[in-house]
Amino acid sequence: MKDFHIGLIGMIAGVCTTASFLPQIIKILRTHHARDISLGMYIALATGILLWLVYGILVRRLPIILANSVAVVFCGIIIAAKLVYNGGARK
Amino acid sequence: MKDFHIGLIGMIAGVCTTASFLPQIIKILRTHHARDISLGMYIALATGILLWLVYGILVRRLPIILANSVAVVFCGIIIAAKLVYNGGARK
Repeated sequence: MKDFHIGLIGMIAGVCTTASFLPQIIKILRTHHARDISLGMYIALATGILLWLVYGILVRRLPIILANSVAVVFCGIIIAAKLVYNGGARK
Repeated sequence: MKDFHIGLIGMIAGVCTTASFLPQIIKILRTHHARDISLGMYIALATGILLWLVYGILVRRLPIILANSVAVVFCGIIIAAKLVYNGGARK
């Protein structure tokens, strides 16, 4: 398979995993509830995403670099939203 | 940087992002609540992880293959748990 097509699959993969955070961000901001969400998950995830970013730079693979650059920001937004809305009383 | 060290960073990154699902799985199974969790997030994430797995196989990078093989299973468990515990009434 050509490098272009491989890169394209990586780009689509990156769009999916990165954009996946958006429904969760929207859900928390809309409901103001984040109690069921695990803070530990997003701290481990943010750490891992930062390391994938370093890895992507080292192996010089653009899809890995782009996806993880954006994903770490989204992950940070979820951590912040979790901290803000964690105690939101369920009505 | 040597290929071994680059691979090691990838492996640690993979362990972090893959293991990150575990606190969320444990939290849902313990509380029986998953209402705040976005189903859309995990469906997009599972799709993206499957594509990263294909990408990892095509670029022949073991950390990408290993991490995403396990991650897709964990992601599936969260989707199943979300479907089972979505309607759990908050006491």
